[in-house]
Amino acid sequence: MEKELLLMLPGPVPIPERVRLAMARQAINHRSPEFGAVYADCVRVMKTAFGTANDLFIISGSGTAGMEAAVANIGRDKEIACIVNGKFGERLYKISQRYGKAHEVKSEWGTPVNLEALKAQLEAGAQVVTLVHNETSAGIKNPAEEIGKLCRKHDALFIMDGITSIAGDVVESDKWGVDIAITGSQKCFAAPAGLAMVSVSNRAWERLCKNPPYYLDLAAYRKSAGNKPMETPYTPAVPLFLAMREACLMIEEEGLPARIARHQKMSNAVQSAAKAWGLHLFPKIDKLHAFSSTVTAIEYPVGVKDDEMRGAIKKMGIVIAGGQDHLKGKIFRIGSMGAVSAPEILATLAAVQHALKKCGYTPKGDGVEAAAGVLG
Amino acid sequence: MEKELLLMLPGPVPIPERVRLAMARQAINHRSPEFGAVYADCVRVMKTAFGTANDLFIISGSGTAGMEAAVANIGRDKEIACIVNGKFGERLYKISQRYGKAHEVKSEWGTPVNLEALKAQLEAGAQVVTLVHNETSAGIKNPAEEIGKLCRKHDALFIMDGITSIAGDVVESDKWGVDIAITGSQKCFAAPAGLAMVSVSNRAWERLCKNPPYYLDLAAYRKSAGNKPMETPYTPAVPLFLAMREACLMIEEEGLPARIARHQKMSNAVQSAAKAWGLHLFPKIDKLHAFSSTVTAIEYPVGVKDDEMRGAIKKMGIVIAGGQDHLKGKIFRIGSMGAVSAPEILATLAAVQHALKKCGYTPKGDGVEAAAGVLG
Repeated sequence: MEKELLLMLPGPVPIPERVRLAMARQAINHRSPEFGAVYADCVRVMKTAFGTANDLFIISGSGTAGMEAAVANIGRDKEIACIVNGKFGERLYKISQRYGKAHEVKSEWGTPVNLEALKAQLEAGAQVVTLVHNETSAGIKNPAEEIGKLCRKHDALFIMDGITSIAGDVVESDKWGVDIAITGSQKCFAAPAGLAMVSVSNRAWERLCKNPPYYLDLAAYRKSAGNKPMETPYTPAVPLFLAMREACLMIEEEGLPARIARHQKMSNAVQSAAKAWGLHLFPKIDKLHAFSSTVTAIEYPVGVKDDEMRGAIKKMGIVIAGGQDHLKGKIFRIGSMGAVSAPEILATLAAVQHALKKCGYTPKGDGVEAAAGVLG
Repeated sequence: MEKELLLMLPGPVPIPERVRLAMARQAINHRSPEFGAVYADCVRVMKTAFGTANDLFIISGSGTAGMEAAVANIGRDKEIACIVNGKFGERLYKISQRYGKAHEVKSEWGTPVNLEALKAQLEAGAQVVTLVHNETSAGIKNPAEEIGKLCRKHDALFIMDGITSIAGDVVESDKWGVDIAITGSQKCFAAPAGLAMVSVSNRAWERLCKNPPYYLDLAAYRKSAGNKPMETPYTPAVPLFLAMREACLMIEEEGLPARIARHQKMSNAVQSAAKAWGLHLFPKIDKLHAFSSTVTAIEYPVGVKDDEMRGAIKKMGIVIAGGQDHLKGKIFRIGSMGAVSAPEILATLAAVQHALKKCGYTPKGDGVEAAAGVLG
């Protein structure tokens, strides 16, 4: 068998061997003290990564299930202001349309959040606000703290999708006034895809809506988590919990601040390479916004074709992401999430640099050397 | 580390090594031809086990997510007749209450379905019927074919939970007129928990309801499954798909008829042991109903305490199930699902026999010998 491709995507990300091997063991009973201890280990570490003392649950499902759990449990029949400056903001808007009166607070993908439009929605009575903290479709980090303050000022509930920031970037859910924060397993946690995590504030519990989907009913998760041993309401994806526990223990061992600094350093290296090549980062940021430190979105130079370039990179055993929807062909994206370290970044940048040349673009300078300077 | 406990539960069941090791490999991109081929392999084998030529999808979530997908996509605002003669029938009733006008067609747990009450509901205009084919909480197999005929006669849609029958017992979804059949990964497929499968008939597609939960929107699954490569709408639990593919290949290798015969033989052995001990099987069956061939529910003899007996069995490294809800302390249940074969059954029955004696009951005869006679 050929070696596995190196996935440098904004998720799923390569999974450390320790984490993968945790799944190879025999099934354990999900209504046993042993499983309860696995669940509790995960929650302990996750609370640190979320920056929260709130309740926190693990749902067997993808990040999208977590997004829907948030909206369905506190957004039904409510006025929901949905901040959209990328694909996942759009997804929260689509989900919100199924439950409440959703209002799109829109700006172009990869451009700053329209805070004036958000204020207008809040003044007009928005009861819930949704935000994607780190918008991977565009490589932009949105000002969650600022938006949290506005929500508090207008007494609105604040849902924050932290799927690609939590455990890889600084997140302070409680300090920022986040009522429901969401993340997924296959991003900065570097665990396998298939688990969604949600934290729930007291304010959110007080305003819980009736009749959420049965599978995503947060009150049922709270009830089962209170059992001894700690449980999930329905059969959980046991191997994914075993893997996630191992991933969480690795986060504890590395230390969260060191992990966040590593993510920052890896993305700095990618940004330096782009700059050396003479390419532009895609997001248009201001002082409230920042370039993502978990994925870097870079504009294609004129004439370089997406399929050709990513095809050439894949021939070298590496997979990077293109643009989604209307950004297809316009940008490429390099993930720096999870367990990613210098060797993967250097190999990826070397492959990108070669592919750029092959596809007809002459880099202004040596991006690989620039990145090595950051990493070394 | 101690050896893992032998789980003789009605799910989760022991997972063959081949299936577990399939999860240990590195993550693969879920939007790649390789993943598409994994998904397609699973669907091919599953269609055989479901007895269907209909569309079939895999949802990353537990069996309950599959149950909700069925009800939410064809039951919203409809008159739903929910057949309840055990815990999982009750769950479908609870889910149905969140979406439509649910009517309980009730009989005592473990007793035959009340067909007269069902006919009355259908005559009164029920548009959807829900049934649990094999009710593990009580060890009874319900007459799906008969109920399918009634649904067709009254032009009602038929949802069948086959979570603990599909891939372990004869299921003919198309022949029986099932519109949505559901199963889970951790039962007769002997794969890890965390995937739900649903098949959808043309009749169901024609009567699809608006506004299902976003994560469980079957139209989105259909659209993504039609992509090349075949995809899921949201990030799937990749390792569980890899494991499921391996489990499906094992089903093809064994052959479905041989697999079904093995389940029947294993449960026959357990039933013979119960009879030899002088104990009663819990279900009260008639000619339309049958004892489950994937789990055997046995009444405790007077004086034998559930905790004591199952505790004594656990000391021998084996876990069997007690009763759920009001049956707690009244019955014990032995699973014979998935990869279970003679050694596990013999060990379990030997442990039960010993525990019965230890807990103050004198078996009438040698149940282990009786079972060996069936298995040998």
